[in-house]
Amino acid sequence: MNLSRVLIYGMGLMGGSLALSVRGKFPKTNITAVVRSEKSKNTILNKNLANHVVLQSEIKSLDWSNYDLVVFSTPVESILKIIPTLPKSGNTIFIDLGSTKETIVSAVESYYGNTIHNYISTHPMCGSEQAGPDAAVPDLYLDKLCILTSPKSASNVSLEWVRSFWEQIGSWTLEMDSKSHDETLAYLSHLPHVISTLLVNVAGSNPTTKKEILESSKPITGGGFRDMSRIAGSNPDMWISIFKENQRFLRNSIDDLIQQLLEFRNLFGSDGSFDESQIRKIWELALANKEEIRKTK
Amino acid sequence: MNLSRVLIYGMGLMGGSLALSVRGKFPKTNITAVVRSEKSKNTILNKNLANHVVLQSEIKSLDWSNYDLVVFSTPVESILKIIPTLPKSGNTIFIDLGSTKETIVSAVESYYGNTIHNYISTHPMCGSEQAGPDAAVPDLYLDKLCILTSPKSASNVSLEWVRSFWEQIGSWTLEMDSKSHDETLAYLSHLPHVISTLLVNVAGSNPTTKKEILESSKPITGGGFRDMSRIAGSNPDMWISIFKENQRFLRNSIDDLIQQLLEFRNLFGSDGSFDESQIRKIWELALANKEEIRKTK
Repeated sequence: MNLSRVLIYGMGLMGGSLALSVRGKFPKTNITAVVRSEKSKNTILNKNLANHVVLQSEIKSLDWSNYDLVVFSTPVESILKIIPTLPKSGNTIFIDLGSTKETIVSAVESYYGNTIHNYISTHPMCGSEQAGPDAAVPDLYLDKLCILTSPKSASNVSLEWVRSFWEQIGSWTLEMDSKSHDETLAYLSHLPHVISTLLVNVAGSNPTTKKEILESSKPITGGGFRDMSRIAGSNPDMWISIFKENQRFLRNSIDDLIQQLLEFRNLFGSDGSFDESQIRKIWELALANKEEIRKTK
Repeated sequence: MNLSRVLIYGMGLMGGSLALSVRGKFPKTNITAVVRSEKSKNTILNKNLANHVVLQSEIKSLDWSNYDLVVFSTPVESILKIIPTLPKSGNTIFIDLGSTKETIVSAVESYYGNTIHNYISTHPMCGSEQAGPDAAVPDLYLDKLCILTSPKSASNVSLEWVRSFWEQIGSWTLEMDSKSHDETLAYLSHLPHVISTLLVNVAGSNPTTKKEILESSKPITGGGFRDMSRIAGSNPDMWISIFKENQRFLRNSIDDLIQQLLEFRNLFGSDGSFDESQIRKIWELALANKEEIRKTK
């Protein structure tokens, strides 16, 4: 795999960690980073995440053909603005790390039309409550799933190159069309983040709970709450971007959850009685679903 | 602390782990277990969790005064049946490990009236998706919170004895009245379990998500979903018991969550627009609440 020069456009946790993975796997590769702030630039140079760092504001035009691989690691909205400026020929491979796929893939498809191109949209499913290049770690992508979405007219050679790239980085790959990706991710990732965030707000808005929390010097939560709240409130910029791109499926998933909460709540009669067998069925179904989703059966 | 003879009434994960802790801290203590099934009896004897095991069905009457400490480690409902059979004098200390407190404490208070007694209700906040004496581990209670609820007319000496017992086991303790306990636990423990359970059912009932899950040989979830689903569907018997005892506060917490989900959902207009600043406020509030609840700020 020829990987002499890589451009990572946007270098936060994801881009910075990818730089560390590339450094580990392809030590001779020359890495260029494009970032917005002086602070990021300094962090990247101090941590030696890239050989060159360019501030976005300093760029007049970019010669994409200088790179074997260009990685877009910015919010989806700004990727959408860059796509119409990409070259329609050349050997540079373009990928992004966007958390949603439909808007990116349709922008790529409408820009390239029937022209064969090298843009493959990818979604490495990892991340952390942390953000910024300071939080970059070399093993972020190790044993993680990277979803590959190939737009129409993308060359098969590019798709196989990108698959091989991610597998050498240490991830395992799975192909998904953009609609299935966004719908599946709404249920398996976006909804869980919304729930975690609202759960801590619900707990924090109950006066008795708040009082007991404030009076204790240590956390009065068990492991359940700790796990359920880990991803709460993290990275608002990223989530606002995701909500912009994927709100149709996210809304559906929230509606499904509200529906199930209402059904659950209605199992309890006002006299204190409740439908025990129905609760048992819900619990059994959850255990089966959990095993199926987590592949533990 | 005099702890020659302990009776653990009901020996699953919690009771069995407590036996291991007692064995570690008070090696000379003689432990008797009361269980329902032959299978549990055999496991307990094989793991040497107790010196004597008695089947519940074999008991005609129990001489509670034989023990320094009696621990009720069964569902709350069956503790409620035992309370009116306890002695009104003697030095035996009684505790339970019940996950809810209001019904137990009011049963104790109505039974003992103004008679000074040695019944202290306790709630060690630990547990696991696992159940049964087979899953017992010696460090289950280490560094965990044990909430102490002292019913009216309980002797102060007993309260301090029980506090000291749990602290020697390795837990840290916090006093809470029964109503505050049950309300706080609804928000910090019971609601999170319900949400985790319904979340996997919501994800499992979406056809696209289901199809992608079935087509992949490995889990397509990230760390967020994995954490959010860990406690889903676990231990239905325990949860049915908790729902019986704490459904008023649990219903309130579910209503609060539905309310916040509806408000969140309504931030998105049908034209794709949404109130970004409001989402940012919700995320910031969650981060503040999370730090306050988890005591990380």
